[in-house]
Amino acid sequence: MTTQVDRPVVASDAEQAAGSARWAHRHLLDVDGLTRADIDLVMRTTDEMHEVLGRPIPKVPALRGTSVTILFYEASTRTRVSFEVAAKNLSADVVNIAASTSSVTKGESLVDTVRTIEALGADMLVMRHAVSGAPYLAAEVFGGSVLNGGDGWHGHPTQALLDLYTLRGRLPGGSLEGRKVVILGDVLHSRVARSNIWTLTAMGADLWLCGPTTLLRGFEAWAARGAAGRRFTVTADVGAALRDADAVMALRIQRERMAGGLLPSLREYAARYGLTRERLRAASPEVIVLHPGPMNEGVEIAPDVAVDPRSVITAQVANGVAVRMALLYLLAGTHHDAASRRELS
Amino acid sequence: MTTQVDRPVVASDAEQAAGSARWAHRHLLDVDGLTRADIDLVMRTTDEMHEVLGRPIPKVPALRGTSVTILFYEASTRTRVSFEVAAKNLSADVVNIAASTSSVTKGESLVDTVRTIEALGADMLVMRHAVSGAPYLAAEVFGGSVLNGGDGWHGHPTQALLDLYTLRGRLPGGSLEGRKVVILGDVLHSRVARSNIWTLTAMGADLWLCGPTTLLRGFEAWAARGAAGRRFTVTADVGAALRDADAVMALRIQRERMAGGLLPSLREYAARYGLTRERLRAASPEVIVLHPGPMNEGVEIAPDVAVDPRSVITAQVANGVAVRMALLYLLAGTHHDAASRRELS
Amino acid sequence: MTTQVDRPVVASDAEQAAGSARWAHRHLLDVDGLTRADIDLVMRTTDEMHEVLGRPIPKVPALRGTSVTILFYEASTRTRVSFEVAAKNLSADVVNIAASTSSVTKGESLVDTVRTIEALGADMLVMRHAVSGAPYLAAEVFGGSVLNGGDGWHGHPTQALLDLYTLRGRLPGGSLEGRKVVILGDVLHSRVARSNIWTLTAMGADLWLCGPTTLLRGFEAWAARGAAGRRFTVTADVGAALRDADAVMALRIQRERMAGGLLPSLREYAARYGLTRERLRAASPEVIVLHPGPMNEGVEIAPDVAVDPRSVITAQVANGVAVRMALLYLLAGTHHDAASRRELS
Repeated sequence: MTTQVDRPVVASDAEQAAGSARWAHRHLLDVDGLTRADIDLVMRTTDEMHEVLGRPIPKVPALRGTSVTILFYEASTRTRVSFEVAAKNLSADVVNIAASTSSVTKGESLVDTVRTIEALGADMLVMRHAVSGAPYLAAEVFGGSVLNGGDGWHGHPTQALLDLYTLRGRLPGGSLEGRKVVILGDVLHSRVARSNIWTLTAMGADLWLCGPTTLLRGFEAWAARGAAGRRFTVTADVGAALRDADAVMALRIQRERMAGGLLPSLREYAARYGLTRERLRAASPEVIVLHPGPMNEGVEIAPDVAVDPRSVITAQVANGVAVRMALLYLLAGTHHDAASRRELS
Repeated sequence: MTTQVDRPVVASDAEQAAGSARWAHRHLLDVDGLTRADIDLVMRTTDEMHEVLGRPIPKVPALRGTSVTILFYEASTRTRVSFEVAAKNLSADVVNIAASTSSVTKGESLVDTVRTIEALGADMLVMRHAVSGAPYLAAEVFGGSVLNGGDGWHGHPTQALLDLYTLRGRLPGGSLEGRKVVILGDVLHSRVARSNIWTLTAMGADLWLCGPTTLLRGFEAWAARGAAGRRFTVTADVGAALRDADAVMALRIQRERMAGGLLPSLREYAARYGLTRERLRAASPEVIVLHPGPMNEGVEIAPDVAVDPRSVITAQVANGVAVRMALLYLLAGTHHDAASRRELS
Repeated sequence: MTTQVDRPVVASDAEQAAGSARWAHRHLLDVDGLTRADIDLVMRTTDEMHEVLGRPIPKVPALRGTSVTILFYEASTRTRVSFEVAAKNLSADVVNIAASTSSVTKGESLVDTVRTIEALGADMLVMRHAVSGAPYLAAEVFGGSVLNGGDGWHGHPTQALLDLYTLRGRLPGGSLEGRKVVILGDVLHSRVARSNIWTLTAMGADLWLCGPTTLLRGFEAWAARGAAGRRFTVTADVGAALRDADAVMALRIQRERMAGGLLPSLREYAARYGLTRERLRAASPEVIVLHPGPMNEGVEIAPDVAVDPRSVITAQVANGVAVRMALLYLLAGTHHDAASRRELS
């Protein structure tokens, strides 16, 4: 994995122009603000964390004395635990707050909750919230670093970065340049899709979004106004999308979408858009199959595809720990000595 | 902060008479049993913990090998996390039990739960319970130390001590003697108020309780029979209460009180008793604004008051960690070697 | 406690024939697969852990770098916390997942959840599930060790082993050979009973199952076909069961069984089968009283019996930590270096 960092993702950025590989972001709210140099730094740091995870005792003292609070307003296993394990592997202290069992349910404002968490000693705040943009609000008041663990339909930056890391590790030469990558399913409600659109097109992929028309609303316009140099196609034609695809990411269909009338039935969805071996025949023989989880097997992905040798779904989860270790590590370097921020007495 | 300990809080106590500063309480169930010497020892120990929290790695090994179980029967963020962080900063091992997800829901008696927690190895038990007096029952059967994290309407001793610590840190000379301190709001249902009444009057404050008459029931009688030397006024007149106040603590209005007919509406409460900048003009220019959290902003406290420079609400939270470290540390010194209590085989 | 390991529990097993005391099981799914040599090894290892628990700092570094995930789909205090404390005492890293607040509620399959947990770095998986057999399914896909913390009505192996350890510690000579042990109550729905039947008869106890006929269904047949050399009586006659009993284990009556019509009422159950001092007079004067908890005092066990000097209920809880330390320790020795199993990139 020796991708050259040679193309800026965002037009003007003094640091990337200088080719610097220093991390300059205090928060990780989404991936749209990351330069290609930033992304490459995350990838290289993840390689190092990957090496740490291979040790008999997968721990380093990098974040000793750093307090990480994980505040989740939505149910989660993989993302919450992944951050917890990542933080502990770096020797940070972790506090878990599940909003359903906290005083958050007493109607306290998000801003007050965040101020409280900081006053309790948190240096870094990982949060998931049902409302798009909530982590941005948190970042305005929190003195340390905020990491977005998923906000509404908006963004899921660590997922996009672990997907990217996983793809780079599997693609010959570790490059996405010109590779056809398909995101298949309920794009409309997917924060995973929105974050992946940024990173995948930034790395030069030929991105296709595919799903029922009702679940693609608004994305045609996004593709049309596209960023210079980004390739981005939106279609309801699953055959066209999968043809010669190098990678396919199936998105979770959320059952509660049925009620809104956006989908006829799970059975019909599975018949028309489910990722089956049959459909995968149109793709490249070495197609890489991804899914952010949790899966509805038999709906958006067939059970045999989920465990097919071409599936990297389990690797995505394992890489998620390494990517989050890298991000916690990089962000921790950007804020001042934690103790100096604590207001006491 | 060099307050002299010169006046006993409770009439007769051999230890305080001797001027000793040794801690003699195995449990912290409420503040009414603390002598002024005890309180001062807590304050001085908190100063030391405050210093620890200012270090790059805010940890000391004081409670290594001590197991602290946090058993909360009510939702909480700040108190639960504050105890957890405090215990971990002292290198204790922490076990969290949220009653809603434990076998407590299977109808086991509190006494059996406490015996079980002790047999599982707990040396210290922090508990919050909806029933007033529950920690007293727990203390009768638990072999280690019980710390009350809030019981019904009865008491919240660590909150009162952190409020006291915060006030002392802000008042000139660190003394409450003769200072007018107002507790404003739903005093009737407030364990925070009840514990603060003890500590504030014990430290010589001129205490005023203010709120709608329906939410002050019983307190006039308490004030009337008062302890010798304690100043304690109860009034529904918010203007009289705030006049020249040195500190005002707004209490949370719990929305569920509306149903009981004790309050007309939140809007009316806010209009008549909400702590606004307008109302604060009657107070001392250096008035200190406190709130135990979580806040209903716009109800018992105006949003601009909550973040006013005179507000110490965030400092209260930060001080809470230091006070709880001090209390865990002091209590840990009072019971025998933990291992000797464990009944095995 | 010097019980001789002299009788194989299961007919043919090369290892036990050789008298070896090496642990050969990767998982602990139930006790029916354990040889008498295995059980004795667990008991002896528990003695060692017991000694560790008696130290001022009850910790050893045995499982440093090992990640233990505790995945509970049912509410629990004692079993969940017992495993957590046991793992931490061995210096393992512990991740708790309560299914009610995890993405498990999003409909992910158990197999996918287990694969995810492994990819997140877990070396050992402790699980409780409402469906009998669920841990067997988990063990088929999990690369590390699975420990059953209770599955449906089927099994609760660590409970049976801690019961056995507790009984051995109290019986003269530490032997159950020929001792009359009574399991009293709702045997039908009890995983505790099912696992105890295996270990107690394997160790040579004269086992009696007693309860209302409706709650003994199927066990007469089990007793009749019995294993060679196992003594196993099933009766609804509580007088006959308790006569000269050396030990009585009262089982929890689950209130929800009433609805199914299997029990007339809690009051009638208590009157006919509740373990009272009166009833215990028929037993041996040194009868040992056990209960797996949580207790419905006044129903299946009288409050005074629960705290009688003959009750070892608290010791069961304390021994549970030592037994689980022993099991985690033994199982950890059976799988390859944890890091080598992690699939990355």
